[in-house]
Amino acid sequence: MASYSELENSMHKLVKNFYNYAEKKGEKDKLTKREFRTMISSELNHVLTNTQSKEAADKLIKSLDADADGKISFDEYWTLINEMCMKMGQQMALNI
Amino acid sequence: MASYSELENSMHKLVKNFYNYAEKKGEKDKLTKREFRTMISSELNHVLTNTQSKEAADKLIKSLDADADGKISFDEYWTLINEMCMKMGQQMALNI
Repeated sequence: MASYSELENSMHKLVKNFYNYAEKKGEKDKLTKREFRTMISSELNHVLTNTQSKEAADKLIKSLDADADGKISFDEYWTLINEMCMKMGQQMALNI
Repeated sequence: MASYSELENSMHKLVKNFYNYAEKKGEKDKLTKREFRTMISSELNHVLTNTQSKEAADKLIKSLDADADGKISFDEYWTLINEMCMKMGQQMALNI
């Protein structure tokens, strides 16, 4: 069978990215606030604004943290991915 | 500013993939059934089963086509991306 497609690899990267950062400290299936801040400042500089600001990051965490446990689960991380991709999709739709 | 991160590129690829196929025929912001079938048989062989079967593809289209217009919108496409990524996430969670 042929190797994975670009689309399959891209999905894998989005999922794996969560675990790459989550496994650094504490629960391996949750992003601590610090892990989340490291993740956005390293990976999302061109898509989010203020990724280097602790205040902005903490505000974003609060908006994503549906169960208010102070950590970001995979589902909560995926909410952010969804939001960013929806925006990209809307922008792309304007240019077709 | 540095170049886009892997995460940003991956999101862009998932979004762009929809428009790459949607623009081939008819409405440029909808996948026709044929475009959808071409897309899954070209891009999702390792993540979905039966991607070469017209029957399986049409069944999948029916399950995604929330507004029942016989075409797949970006939001409907994204439902599929979500489902596949959730499954990948669950499998990855078992291996940490």
